[in-house]
Amino acid sequence: MNDCIFCKIIAGDMPSYKIYEDQFTYAFLDISNDANGHILVVPKQHATNVLDCDKTVLVHIMDTIQKISKHLVENCDFDGVNILNASGKSAEQSVFHLHFHILPRRADDNLHVFPELAKNEASLQEICEKLRIK
Amino acid sequence: MNDCIFCKIIAGDMPSYKIYEDQFTYAFLDISNDANGHILVVPKQHATNVLDCDKTVLVHIMDTIQKISKHLVENCDFDGVNILNASGKSAEQSVFHLHFHILPRRADDNLHVFPELAKNEASLQEICEKLRIK
Repeated sequence: MNDCIFCKIIAGDMPSYKIYEDQFTYAFLDISNDANGHILVVPKQHATNVLDCDKTVLVHIMDTIQKISKHLVENCDFDGVNILNASGKSAEQSVFHLHFHILPRRADDNLHVFPELAKNEASLQEICEKLRIK
Repeated sequence: MNDCIFCKIIAGDMPSYKIYEDQFTYAFLDISNDANGHILVVPKQHATNVLDCDKTVLVHIMDTIQKISKHLVENCDFDGVNILNASGKSAEQSVFHLHFHILPRRADDNLHVFPELAKNEASLQEICEKLRIK
């Protein structure tokens, strides 16, 4: 996609801090520079998000997420990772090229990644009936 | 695993609000009942998290995440989804059976899922040199 900044990064037309690259995926540091090693994993083949991408693209993405996560824990002195994705503008997606965030974690990092959300008013039974795949 | 509550849910030995099930995966509502349809997707084959699970397990998990995400947007009046995972105690993982969270999103839901984290002191160049897979 001509106007996609992640496609430009993958093509080398924009600079990035590359962490990993293979035939199908590219991983680089998020320029927000938070969380000590906030990494984005993207497919080389453009897709908007999880809602429109090919299954095979997701397989490659998950392979790379797992490879980087293990590397962070085994070789880089981290204890764990958070993996996050936003699919859709309403989900706070800001760049519309599929990307998964990896946030490396340490026991003493004092980060709080998981959102604290208000209790829902509908019962779990009601929600389940609406959302269940029959 | 005998003492794993998600294994008990999968086996039917503990109740759950099931959203979807297939040969390899099981999806049910998170009992926190936040985010109007907070769903957990788990593999039937026990794994602790992304760091120790088989690649094939991740493929099935991503298939189910995509299937449910599309269902939420196409059939359930949502506009997008957030996908989250915690791998490791330091990453705020609380149940040690691999699970991905799906948070359905709407433009008017007033949720804020993405964490706001403090700027990191090291430069992106320094971090990249430490974390890059050579």
